[in-house]
Amino acid sequence: MQSRTAFQSKTVVTDLVLPSETNPINNLFGGELLARMDRAASIAARRHSRRIVVTASVNHVAFNRSVPLGSVVTIEAKVSRAFTSSMEVYMDVWIEDRESGECIKANEAIYTFVAVDETGRPVKIPELVPETELEKERFDAALRRKQLSLVLAGKMQPSDATELKALFES
Amino acid sequence: MQSRTAFQSKTVVTDLVLPSETNPINNLFGGELLARMDRAASIAARRHSRRIVVTASVNHVAFNRSVPLGSVVTIEAKVSRAFTSSMEVYMDVWIEDRESGECIKANEAIYTFVAVDETGRPVKIPELVPETELEKERFDAALRRKQLSLVLAGKMQPSDATELKALFES
Amino acid sequence: MQSRTAFQSKTVVTDLVLPSETNPINNLFGGELLARMDRAASIAARRHSRRIVVTASVNHVAFNRSVPLGSVVTIEAKVSRAFTSSMEVYMDVWIEDRESGECIKANEAIYTFVAVDETGRPVKIPELVPETELEKERFDAALRRKQLSLVLAGKMQPSDATELKALFES
Amino acid sequence: MQSRTAFQSKTVVTDLVLPSETNPINNLFGGELLARMDRAASIAARRHSRRIVVTASVNHVAFNRSVPLGSVVTIEAKVSRAFTSSMEVYMDVWIEDRESGECIKANEAIYTFVAVDETGRPVKIPELVPETELEKERFDAALRRKQLSLVLAGKMQPSDATELKALFES
Amino acid sequence: MQSRTAFQSKTVVTDLVLPSETNPINNLFGGELLARMDRAASIAARRHSRRIVVTASVNHVAFNRSVPLGSVVTIEAKVSRAFTSSMEVYMDVWIEDRESGECIKANEAIYTFVAVDETGRPVKIPELVPETELEKERFDAALRRKQLSLVLAGKMQPSDATELKALFES
Amino acid sequence: MQSRTAFQSKTVVTDLVLPSETNPINNLFGGELLARMDRAASIAARRHSRRIVVTASVNHVAFNRSVPLGSVVTIEAKVSRAFTSSMEVYMDVWIEDRESGECIKANEAIYTFVAVDETGRPVKIPELVPETELEKERFDAALRRKQLSLVLAGKMQPSDATELKALFES
Repeated sequence: MQSRTAFQSKTVVTDLVLPSETNPINNLFGGELLARMDRAASIAARRHSRRIVVTASVNHVAFNRSVPLGSVVTIEAKVSRAFTSSMEVYMDVWIEDRESGECIKANEAIYTFVAVDETGRPVKIPELVPETELEKERFDAALRRKQLSLVLAGKMQPSDATELKALFES
Repeated sequence: MQSRTAFQSKTVVTDLVLPSETNPINNLFGGELLARMDRAASIAARRHSRRIVVTASVNHVAFNRSVPLGSVVTIEAKVSRAFTSSMEVYMDVWIEDRESGECIKANEAIYTFVAVDETGRPVKIPELVPETELEKERFDAALRRKQLSLVLAGKMQPSDATELKALFES
Repeated sequence: MQSRTAFQSKTVVTDLVLPSETNPINNLFGGELLARMDRAASIAARRHSRRIVVTASVNHVAFNRSVPLGSVVTIEAKVSRAFTSSMEVYMDVWIEDRESGECIKANEAIYTFVAVDETGRPVKIPELVPETELEKERFDAALRRKQLSLVLAGKMQPSDATELKALFES
Repeated sequence: MQSRTAFQSKTVVTDLVLPSETNPINNLFGGELLARMDRAASIAARRHSRRIVVTASVNHVAFNRSVPLGSVVTIEAKVSRAFTSSMEVYMDVWIEDRESGECIKANEAIYTFVAVDETGRPVKIPELVPETELEKERFDAALRRKQLSLVLAGKMQPSDATELKALFES
Repeated sequence: MQSRTAFQSKTVVTDLVLPSETNPINNLFGGELLARMDRAASIAARRHSRRIVVTASVNHVAFNRSVPLGSVVTIEAKVSRAFTSSMEVYMDVWIEDRESGECIKANEAIYTFVAVDETGRPVKIPELVPETELEKERFDAALRRKQLSLVLAGKMQPSDATELKALFES
Repeated sequence: MQSRTAFQSKTVVTDLVLPSETNPINNLFGGELLARMDRAASIAARRHSRRIVVTASVNHVAFNRSVPLGSVVTIEAKVSRAFTSSMEVYMDVWIEDRESGECIKANEAIYTFVAVDETGRPVKIPELVPETELEKERFDAALRRKQLSLVLAGKMQPSDATELKALFES
């Protein structure tokens, strides 16, 4: 099974924020953005694995910046690391102002997907090869996040999470 | 400002899983469940604060169990702890089998909301008083999660996250 | 086949009224509320019968109180009486004011469902046992409503509708 | 205020039944049909009154015939009688078979609407003049239905409902 | 295979313009109108052919008149000409003002559909017989449009498009 | 007003084809694709003009290739030429096979948008500068298409459409 680059999974989804998707202060609902990110990320995961993929988990997501009605929102998703049958997908979300054309980072998000066969059983997937500096950084961090996830799920002892422990002892 | 109990914010949302919400192996899309949970949690936050609320963050969410087409899904949301103007909302998600009537836990999720005024500025909210054992446990854990969130956002030094540090040193 | 209580079928659906669901004077469309009630009632009927259920009829529904944009609407549905293969489901609909937290009754509605097998043929269902005073009252009234329904459908002579006739002769 | 004919309010809505609108045995959800009928009827009421209209009540609706996936459904709505500020709208619903082109009556339904101004207060509307035999029949029956509705709402004594009483004493 | 009249395929779809379907200056999105017209036209094509139909092409559509929020939009679709297995459907779109009841023509549109069997292969369909003056005019023009379409698709030499050539040489 | 390149308006929208968007032979509805293309093209037009934009017309669109359920569809939109206040947007639509990862061209489409102010009046927009060979080719063809559009709308005599006439006389 041939490894693939992060670039090969790159998925761009650009869309408007419509009135039916906004809260009482005219910003995009958090839940609506979570759903859009799931769709974008699932396509990136599918492009890497060429398999049916299902959402396994969502990493901590912070909505630091509200997305106003009428904005153009762009989600850029790339697989950041592949494990045996699971993939971490890293997303950058941008908001674009109509008048100035200026783009600002709204937030980042990390989802994990599992590749499965038609009966829902996990299948082996290709390795991911990071190329740019940023891709390499995210590739490395993905292992720490996987450990944190295992610790929070009670499937790994905190003391065994070597990558993670280092973070708090520094 | 009078404190309120967790029970007073309790919100129950029961709904079916329809064909238009399922992936190729006939299970509910992760993104669709994330959006439904955002709606349920926002109502619980609103009931506690009696204010407009906006999603601030989503804690790590694991989809341990797939939700098949035709299931009845019940989301039960309660505010687990209130801070100055933010609230943590804890959700339990149940799937119900049509034939046996049996309910199984699908997953848990934790969202954070901020109460705001009409211009989007944070406002002070009432304290939350936990009553049951489970509510007290979740109330205590909420502080650790808040510290983790601040550390991940780079707004708190790992070494200052006393509650969190204890977790990894045990 | 073991009888079940009304409580065992109780279904609660809480949701927001969003801008895309309101008419020109900013109240929830009647048709949208009818559709939400159908979903809630069908889950209650399914919980009682543990079968596929299809809507058979909607009793007279009055929209006495408009439901403004931004309200939280709670529908509480319980089976009120079971016949051979059909069930009457009684719903209470509540509107909650965001600022006062006050709940007011918006309206009541009664839908009838039939339990069917995979080919659409009616199947026998368990009896319903009412427990509270209100449940008993609604259980008794259900028979009168069934007679009215049969009379209106031309399947029963008005003179044979003993329960109903009494109502107009008192 | 000039009276109008039933024909002038006639509204035809033809649409397909799509997979996302069907229940587990592949028929149109009752709630979906209720919502479509509300839209069609509200346009008829608006055409008669030339005002904003809101749903006041839904008369008893029986779903005698299921509407299979892929059908073409046609709703034909006409105002059947106008009162001071309310209108009764009578609908005939037809299902069309793709291969034979044959149309069969699926069901009838009766909704009542109130014409209101921008602040939601009822306003006076034109009278309705029935022309065909069927329109006259429905015009006459509308008064009986209005009495039944008032009796059920506890706003009229059964003994005062002269039109209705006659029905049960015949 | 018996020929059919244009009238036999006539399809009327009347609907409201809701807030979730409008652009920042409160007019119906062009894309939403294109989708509604596709649904109406596909029903007309289905009524003529009594087959599954798929959209083959959309002729030039001009949105000469904006459709404001709250309008009632009526689409009237009729098959204008049938070829071996394809049909041209001609649509007139009307906007109705609530207060005056006045109807104005919003635009016209022409879509082409192909009748197919369950495997997606084109099937033979009945001829169309135009009856009114307007139907005959559109029937004749349909041939010129078919030639233009073939020229634009590179499947016919401009010099062979006799009907079309005449248009530019007049 | 500074001119802009076609590249600066480039908009990519990638999305899945879900079951609720497909016809009876499991391909994406033509109308759904028309609506998605309208959204993508409107963002490209907005990026070029930095104004509110409204759909003015849709050029002839041929659906040469069906888009099966479960495909990933990518729409790439770029402004091809700017006139005084209107813009032509050219789109390429690609379908991606999940297993092979292979991309095939599904179709091309051309929409025209007008930039307007808050009251809906056309406003002046920057010129477009084509850079690549393909952009230049489409830039030139845009003028011919504009003439054809004017001829079809009866706003230009066929004999004055010099660019277009040449096409049929060659």
